[in-house]
Amino acid sequence: MTMTDPIADMLTRLRNANTAMHDDVSMPSSKVKEALAELLKKEGYIEDFEATDNTDRPGRTLTVTMKYSPERARIISGIKRVSKPGLRVYTKSDRIPRVLGGLGVAVVSTSQGLMTDREARQRHVGGEILCFVW
Amino acid sequence: MTMTDPIADMLTRLRNANTAMHDDVSMPSSKVKEALAELLKKEGYIEDFEATDNTDRPGRTLTVTMKYSPERARIISGIKRVSKPGLRVYTKSDRIPRVLGGLGVAVVSTSQGLMTDREARQRHVGGEILCFVW
Repeated sequence: MTMTDPIADMLTRLRNANTAMHDDVSMPSSKVKEALAELLKKEGYIEDFEATDNTDRPGRTLTVTMKYSPERARIISGIKRVSKPGLRVYTKSDRIPRVLGGLGVAVVSTSQGLMTDREARQRHVGGEILCFVW
Repeated sequence: MTMTDPIADMLTRLRNANTAMHDDVSMPSSKVKEALAELLKKEGYIEDFEATDNTDRPGRTLTVTMKYSPERARIISGIKRVSKPGLRVYTKSDRIPRVLGGLGVAVVSTSQGLMTDREARQRHVGGEILCFVW
């Protein structure tokens, strides 16, 4: 299957798993998806992730372990794709948006890799705004 | 009772009513609370509101009728106080924040009254950022 927006697909799968409060969710993997999972883990939005080589076909499968509070409340309250293949959204280092005044994070794809809006601001780098998570 | 932040009190009552999915919620009223209710109604976040004179004491009581989808899903997913008595947040007309890229609204208190971030941007007025609703 050809996918026009694999990142949107990943975000949709995470959103759906979160709504249904599933423990984990799997999807076709890629370098950028793994980098995004790494960032979401560091920021405390997911519990963990693992990328494993497919046995029956080329490529890897990414499995994300979702995160909920001890009272089984959701940690992620929303996910929004920002930049899209049809309308790329780039931002300069001095115009990095804040998500709900710092309540959430914007994921920025920069020349130094994926990072949060906070980190991009500190490092004075701009880039493509992949998504908001809050 | 002396209240240090009546707007925060209103937002907390709305947040709690929304979480509990109550049909309506009442609170002490004021001009600015009624203006905020008017804006939230116009933006589709609440169903309606009414301010009535108290019979037993001075002042008015504000009753807000909450809004839910036909499937009884919440319309409001979050409310955040931004400017606070201890830390006022003002913004110039060319720096009005967007809430989740337009998914929500920022309520701005301007010299022309309360308005949404969208309206403030159009009218080129700045002011105090009362809250985000999304």
